Amino acid sequence: MGIERIMPGLAVGGESKIVLLVLDGLGGLPWPDSGLTELEAASTPNLDALASRHTCGLIHPVSPGITPGSGPGHLALFGYDPLKYEIGRGILSALGLGLEVGPGEVAARVNFCTVEGGLVADRRAGRIPTEVNAELCALISERVEVPGLTFTLKPEKEHRAALILRGEGLSENLTDSDPERTGFPPLRVLPRDPGDERAVRSAELVNAFLDAVGETLKDRRQANMILLRGFSGHPSIPTMEERYGLRAAAIATYPMYRGLARLVGMRVLETGDAFEDQLDTLEGSWEDYDFFFLHYKKTDSAGEDGDYRRKVRCIEEVDSFMPRITALRPEVLVVTGDHSTPALLRAHSWHPCPLLLASDREMPDEVDAFSERRCARGGLGIFSAVDLMPLMLANAGRLGKYGA
Amino acid sequence: MGIERIMPGLAVGGESKIVLLVLDGLGGLPWPDSGLTELEAASTPNLDALASRHTCGLIHPVSPGITPGSGPGHLALFGYDPLKYEIGRGILSALGLGLEVGPGEVAARVNFCTVEGGLVADRRAGRIPTEVNAELCALISERVEVPGLTFTLKPEKEHRAALILRGEGLSENLTDSDPERTGFPPLRVLPRDPGDERAVRSAELVNAFLDAVGETLKDRRQANMILLRGFSGHPSIPTMEERYGLRAAAIATYPMYRGLARLVGMRVLETGDAFEDQLDTLEGSWEDYDFFFLHYKKTDSAGEDGDYRRKVRCIEEVDSFMPRITALRPEVLVVTGDHSTPALLRAHSWHPCPLLLASDREMPDEVDAFSERRCARGGLGIFSAVDLMPLMLANAGRLGKYGA
Repeated sequence: MGIERIMPGLAVGGESKIVLLVLDGLGGLPWPDSGLTELEAASTPNLDALASRHTCGLIHPVSPGITPGSGPGHLALFGYDPLKYEIGRGILSALGLGLEVGPGEVAARVNFCTVEGGLVADRRAGRIPTEVNAELCALISERVEVPGLTFTLKPEKEHRAALILRGEGLSENLTDSDPERTGFPPLRVLPRDPGDERAVRSAELVNAFLDAVGETLKDRRQANMILLRGFSGHPSIPTMEERYGLRAAAIATYPMYRGLARLVGMRVLETGDAFEDQLDTLEGSWEDYDFFFLHYKKTDSAGEDGDYRRKVRCIEEVDSFMPRITALRPEVLVVTGDHSTPALLRAHSWHPCPLLLASDREMPDEVDAFSERRCARGGLGIFSAVDLMPLMLANAGRLGKYGA
Repeated sequence: MGIERIMPGLAVGGESKIVLLVLDGLGGLPWPDSGLTELEAASTPNLDALASRHTCGLIHPVSPGITPGSGPGHLALFGYDPLKYEIGRGILSALGLGLEVGPGEVAARVNFCTVEGGLVADRRAGRIPTEVNAELCALISERVEVPGLTFTLKPEKEHRAALILRGEGLSENLTDSDPERTGFPPLRVLPRDPGDERAVRSAELVNAFLDAVGETLKDRRQANMILLRGFSGHPSIPTMEERYGLRAAAIATYPMYRGLARLVGMRVLETGDAFEDQLDTLEGSWEDYDFFFLHYKKTDSAGEDGDYRRKVRCIEEVDSFMPRITALRPEVLVVTGDHSTPALLRAHSWHPCPLLLASDREMPDEVDAFSERRCARGGLGIFSAVDLMPLMLANAGRLGKYGA
């Protein structure tokens, strides 16, 4: 953690611009038919030209063998050690729904469940339709009142929802009410540390809330209770401005990434759904910020669907827009992923992500095309994603000398 | 060491099999005649075929420039940070003799020495024959009695032996009795922390034991006393089952490696002396375990003897048996060393070890033969041995996602 500690003292400011383009789940594995990864199969003349002129490498989002979720993957790219700054599941669910979680507020994941004779008979309430979920959330929001507690309950998909709790001195140091299996009653929420008075009081409030929810839903046969998991508070995390002296902006379409960016103090810009819209936003706000986090989601979705061809096309789509980014002449342009999502595995994976760093101050290497296997032989080597941010700042002339 | 902390939460179990084949001291340096390392000179068609189809790299056992002993070298391969889990020399000596050291027991290294006029005249007692050593150990075991203390004293080679002490509340927090030079009296054993009451009491017991040993040997001219060094207790170390959810088995012939494996909770299987016997054991126990640590010692011995040709032949012997391992179709097969032992240096060295990882979920690279120099350009890059275990588990489908 030494590097994180010294960063604020090294930041020197400046006029230079940095663009971090994240193709979510970019890294892949060879597809059996072609023997090529998605990135190798894609026609990417613009990215290849950049790779050819500049410098490549591979980055481990967390460390070798570790498959990250989107939270740790992005925190590392922003220079925050993902093993140090753990973002709770409740927070991520809330962020994913576009909810803001402020300091002192507590978020939790919600499942509607079915209780029979006091015991959980179905932890997912038969995967109720999302519309029913929305109706029940509205009903609870209208009916449930607990003195000293206010809340936001927002439907996600099927049986899932997110809850944000607000109140004086609320603590996230609470156990789940979800028994994690059927045949057991919903659990009382307990303070993780019985000596933590705030947690003791918070547990009482949450249990009162759960009782009121049970009362509200008691006449239903299905989805007649909720289970809470992953209580988490707003993490204590320095902003990018504090740490790097950067005015940072996020141009992302999915709520979770917008929320993650907000957590580290980025300004989240309004933008449209298409990548083209995101580029309009980039161009339109170019003068106002030093650092732009540009997030492209569709590569990851295609990978998770196991749709090799679609992931190839997504990469080609991004490539086709690269000239609009380079035309802005950022001092530093990085293209990488937050983790790999090989279509072959239909899931996030542990494989290190290809990285392209375009800057006039970096040592050019012999890589002449942008792909996992070329990047493995790139001049930057294979390194930890958390080290990328200092490297970008250095190339942007935004880091002073360490020590005399 | 955040990674070690999160491992237990990520382990997901499964049916897959992992084989870790360690050729002790595998790495080498070019021999002057041929300009080739032992591994480069060896004919290894089976290992080369695996390297060609799969993925290679180099691993640093501890970190660049650090030459490890067998203890740290193996702990790192098992995923335990060798800088965090230090195995005392006393423990290693005892393990090397096939002695088991349980929790609460204390081990120490023993030298027979010669004392003249109260001063140590020869710290090695003229390197007495091993048979004399054995007789003296038997004599001491028969005669010496200290209330509150029992012990096992086992001869090693020449003047060396191992001691295990057992007693209520025994502490290893003790200084050596070996003055480390001649012309000084054997030292009294002291508690390292005078405020540590268990250590104070343990020191008294050990000194009483030393007095009784001196009394027993006092009529001898040579080897008339013992010196104790490296007091160490059973390290507090989580098992591989606790950390990775693995049923792990060790197939090793040398006591020290069997002991190291036992320390991390592996089941140590009975096996014969030849590599062929070890493979019989592997095949015979295939259904009973998830992870197999297969240890081949002779490469290291040949390296330490400076016998380049013999080390080449040892590597060829292992290669010839590879088809029996691959026929078992492990999901993950790793071939590597715990450190390098170049015949040129006749000793362990700091050079990173070649690594071959055969798995259908890893990115194949362009390496087409298994050697130090090819591996240096492998797709896995050069990384820390402690990161190998997560990588094996990931490839075996035994690690869940970190964070959401």
